[in-house]
Amino acid sequence: MRVEELDTPAAIVELDKLEVNISRFQRYLDEHGIANRPHIKTHKIPEIAHMQLRAGAVGITCQKIGEAEVMAQAGIRDIFLPYNIIGERKLERLMGLAHRVNLSVTADSEFTLRGLAAAAHREGLELETLVEFDSGLGRCGVQTPQEAANLARLIARSPGLRFGGLMTYPSNQNTDPFVIATRALLAGDGLAIGRVSGGSTPGMWQAHTHPEINEHRAGMYVYGDRYTVKNGAMKLEECSLKVITTVVSRPTAERGILDGGSKTFSSDLLGLEGYGLILEYPDAVIYGQSEEHGHVDFSQCARKPDIGERVTVVPNHCCVVSNLFNQVAGVRDGKVEVIWPVAARGALQ
Amino acid sequence: MRVEELDTPAAIVELDKLEVNISRFQRYLDEHGIANRPHIKTHKIPEIAHMQLRAGAVGITCQKIGEAEVMAQAGIRDIFLPYNIIGERKLERLMGLAHRVNLSVTADSEFTLRGLAAAAHREGLELETLVEFDSGLGRCGVQTPQEAANLARLIARSPGLRFGGLMTYPSNQNTDPFVIATRALLAGDGLAIGRVSGGSTPGMWQAHTHPEINEHRAGMYVYGDRYTVKNGAMKLEECSLKVITTVVSRPTAERGILDGGSKTFSSDLLGLEGYGLILEYPDAVIYGQSEEHGHVDFSQCARKPDIGERVTVVPNHCCVVSNLFNQVAGVRDGKVEVIWPVAARGALQ
Repeated sequence: MRVEELDTPAAIVELDKLEVNISRFQRYLDEHGIANRPHIKTHKIPEIAHMQLRAGAVGITCQKIGEAEVMAQAGIRDIFLPYNIIGERKLERLMGLAHRVNLSVTADSEFTLRGLAAAAHREGLELETLVEFDSGLGRCGVQTPQEAANLARLIARSPGLRFGGLMTYPSNQNTDPFVIATRALLAGDGLAIGRVSGGSTPGMWQAHTHPEINEHRAGMYVYGDRYTVKNGAMKLEECSLKVITTVVSRPTAERGILDGGSKTFSSDLLGLEGYGLILEYPDAVIYGQSEEHGHVDFSQCARKPDIGERVTVVPNHCCVVSNLFNQVAGVRDGKVEVIWPVAARGALQ
Repeated sequence: MRVEELDTPAAIVELDKLEVNISRFQRYLDEHGIANRPHIKTHKIPEIAHMQLRAGAVGITCQKIGEAEVMAQAGIRDIFLPYNIIGERKLERLMGLAHRVNLSVTADSEFTLRGLAAAAHREGLELETLVEFDSGLGRCGVQTPQEAANLARLIARSPGLRFGGLMTYPSNQNTDPFVIATRALLAGDGLAIGRVSGGSTPGMWQAHTHPEINEHRAGMYVYGDRYTVKNGAMKLEECSLKVITTVVSRPTAERGILDGGSKTFSSDLLGLEGYGLILEYPDAVIYGQSEEHGHVDFSQCARKPDIGERVTVVPNHCCVVSNLFNQVAGVRDGKVEVIWPVAARGALQ
């Protein structure tokens, strides 16, 4: 099937670009001796995860147990779950995973650690556990090296757990000082910090400038999007994910309506103007969306599209697009080579 | 199962409230002699559509063929698809539907009409077709009564199509003048405007103030959300859809992190402050989100939650939540009475 025959809205991945994105970043991390542990939340597709592993990734990162279960089912054997896993149902599923794959997790509180320890001890497991610290994003993570050291000590004395190191997101100028300070605090305990896991795609080419980080988690680098281009990590022509839509209405001379809106692209702006870039009409602005319609201002375009014309959109945020599509078409030279179900889509738990 | 046993994030629907919402609005429309044709995009669940039909709805509204196919499969026999259906693949599926159910559609251009007419004529069908006009939202729809009349005439002379009337969204002060002007233009052609289909939940209780509208399409009224409450159409205590989340981190004295973010709630703000209302902490603000985390400022709350505590969130926009969850739990008196798959979720085409 030709790409022109796909019905719209359709998510496509240009395979040549995808392959280059995977190999180029792997080579960079290899050169700097940093382990690559890509985050699959961007694509949610086991086949792409396997491509990343074949290129040299040491394992993958998932954000939810449900995502990890899909990846384990697809034969992936090393999974990092940097999320506070809380509650008996989730801990039960986590232990199921830990029996099947080489699993590591994180925690940022005594509460989370006590749950993990009780579950793992009961199952006769020794779960590798890292302490999450906040490098400035203001999400999860302990705030001080003292807190990190306290949790590391709690892990070390908890049957069922093994202290694995530190984890943060993103890697930035705060990470090295935090790691160094925590290491100093733990020196007296004889507790070594094995893994220091950092991350982000925007900072992907600066990973080597944080010498304490020995593992990098990036997600978006496989696809790229307007946000990745804006922050300079990738070029527009390197973006592999596109969404093909159809112009379904031209109510006025300047305005056009696409058959993709917030249900296709999400409402994520990430500081950008408009909800995506139309490659055929780069001067057009997707200034509004309803769930099933994109509202486009074509006034700055010399030529305007006809009703029924198909246009190609680079979305603002590739990860959320993956969660909205049930499948993605892998294309090469305009031909659909493969249809990948987005197998880990919608894994909320 | 008790609702406390559901893992989080969980979408629940309080069945008592759902039932009242359905019957109350049906009664209002019945009293005013307006046909009720609810939009299923809000819930995407055939069982709830059947509840709406049993209450007295004349049929349902879907926005995509995929949604309509799911509803037809579930035994629903009258479906309105007010969307410009374009392209051979979609037209083929549309004809498949038209053979199975009482189907009506809309168009706002000659291009769309010619496609519909050719497909329907080929199949020996006579497809009821309404003309969409723009009542000010600036989405699809013709701009003038003259354009509407021209398309109505084209429908009337197209074998395969039957002129059904006019459709707009939302119903407002512009609708009656537009309908009246179009009717005057068509009087000489002997073309009657049968259905005049308007809509919106924010304007649900004003439906009777637009005398030209004889059919109303509302979606959100079954669930309600912060947006519906803000615009005064529903009260907070009438909202039936909630999302239960767990506080997975308390990194600072004032800040808490929920296990639901933009993948659970979407990024829709709709002019509101924050990404949802936490019922147990109404003074808290969900000021930020990452995909799997909600970032909450609890500084204005006298008591702050502990890690592991579950909190109940009324989302900003109920429709997008439906598209993110694979299932919804129907609860009554704290007991899970039913688990409904969100069967029409993700129907992008």
